Amino acid sequence: MTKEISSLQNDLVKEIIQLQEKSRVRKQKGLFIIEGQREILLALEGGYDIRKLLFCEEIIGKAVLDQLLASFTGIQPLLVKLSFKVYQKVAHRKTTEGIIAITVAKNLSISDLSLSKNPLILVAEASEKPGNIGALLRTADAAHLDAVIIANPKTDLYNPNIIRSSVGCVFTNQIALGSTDEILSLLKEKQINIFTAALDDRSIPYDTIDYSKPSAIIVGTEATGLSEQWLENATENVIIPMQGKIDSLNVSVSAAILIFEAKRQRGFQL
Amino acid sequence: MTKEISSLQNDLVKEIIQLQEKSRVRKQKGLFIIEGQREILLALEGGYDIRKLLFCEEIIGKAVLDQLLASFTGIQPLLVKLSFKVYQKVAHRKTTEGIIAITVAKNLSISDLSLSKNPLILVAEASEKPGNIGALLRTADAAHLDAVIIANPKTDLYNPNIIRSSVGCVFTNQIALGSTDEILSLLKEKQINIFTAALDDRSIPYDTIDYSKPSAIIVGTEATGLSEQWLENATENVIIPMQGKIDSLNVSVSAAILIFEAKRQRGFQL
Repeated sequence: MTKEISSLQNDLVKEIIQLQEKSRVRKQKGLFIIEGQREILLALEGGYDIRKLLFCEEIIGKAVLDQLLASFTGIQPLLVKLSFKVYQKVAHRKTTEGIIAITVAKNLSISDLSLSKNPLILVAEASEKPGNIGALLRTADAAHLDAVIIANPKTDLYNPNIIRSSVGCVFTNQIALGSTDEILSLLKEKQINIFTAALDDRSIPYDTIDYSKPSAIIVGTEATGLSEQWLENATENVIIPMQGKIDSLNVSVSAAILIFEAKRQRGFQL
Repeated sequence: MTKEISSLQNDLVKEIIQLQEKSRVRKQKGLFIIEGQREILLALEGGYDIRKLLFCEEIIGKAVLDQLLASFTGIQPLLVKLSFKVYQKVAHRKTTEGIIAITVAKNLSISDLSLSKNPLILVAEASEKPGNIGALLRTADAAHLDAVIIANPKTDLYNPNIIRSSVGCVFTNQIALGSTDEILSLLKEKQINIFTAALDDRSIPYDTIDYSKPSAIIVGTEATGLSEQWLENATENVIIPMQGKIDSLNVSVSAAILIFEAKRQRGFQL
């Protein structure tokens, strides 16, 4: 039998709101919220463990819901019906979706990453803007990178704005978080070239670098660039030649230029 | 003598708020608002006619203001002192800058564009998100494109969020607005190759195209892509090979990949 909630004072309602809003609560409970049918399907494909499905009949039709439920094989989430008023209150995207999932977070550590023989990896240092992380994840998905690693993260991955701006690519990429030390150890141990996107004149133009061997592309934040530790440990510091008055590329744009140059050199082979 | 305003009911205060918020008012008056010293300097360099400078002594120091004023040669803007309360009310960025300029809009038409002998141009069709337009303008600045043309614009250029997200690149690029018909006429008349970023299988991989001759790169919106008229009139429809589960690059990312491939082929020559 399906549970029904129509009171804003319900404990589950309070929990959802906290999971949407508070990184601390997400970390503590190891749970997060997914909104939308498309995103839930992508998370299922990505092997996420979805514990509860909360839907609003006034928004999502029965046929659509049944189709979604048919995609759950193996796991059987608890179904909870929310009143329109309650759904509106808990949904980050208001009434556009009609379906929300409480899902178990994946906390992939650096050592859990499964890499191909000739990996191409993106490392993003301490990106603080959800929109930038989302755009990086979209690029990583399209380029079919082996992994995305967030160094010294300032946020968790399951911020609703990251999920949203990644258009679900947070579920399709292999993503790990770790300290710069840990990541450098892994890259060196696996003999992966470290190409740091730097902005100084000592750097080599990005298009003169050979990305055909195992490579990691490292990008920093727009505000402060990469930390010294990365620059010092790089195989090469690379630069995108800029010829404008301002010369400030968006971090996700810089990363994409480097990643797709690597892909081009590799003949877009997987 | 410097004028002073401390009342929120002042007509100039109302005008600034309207210029910040309403595209219609900006178009009607041919004026817009610039916030921030850096942006104002870039606009001056870009030859913009700044009519009034409104500052708040509690935020911007006298030395900084004097330095900024020294950059005004030829034009002499009216100086207006705003109380802290009034400044807070009219400033989009609240109290981070302390200086606002009322500036005459440039409405460059397609025929006004001044192009080099071997131009590289970006055409963006109907981008509706200020953040995307801002990121495109940053890329265009860094790549030192001849011009950016917005086809069938849904907004004016001087939306405060475009100015902000472009980090001032709205002042450093040559930008024109026009209809698809007008732009196609110009490109054909000047024998500029038209490379449309398309998503279908008939398209040619972007890295197999020769961008060394006069070229325009045309990008559509993320939601609907390019209109048929562009695809039909293209020299080539080009595609960025995508190998992910979602394959949805951000429009400013796609544009940057194409633009920097063209730059690479041109040896980053100006």
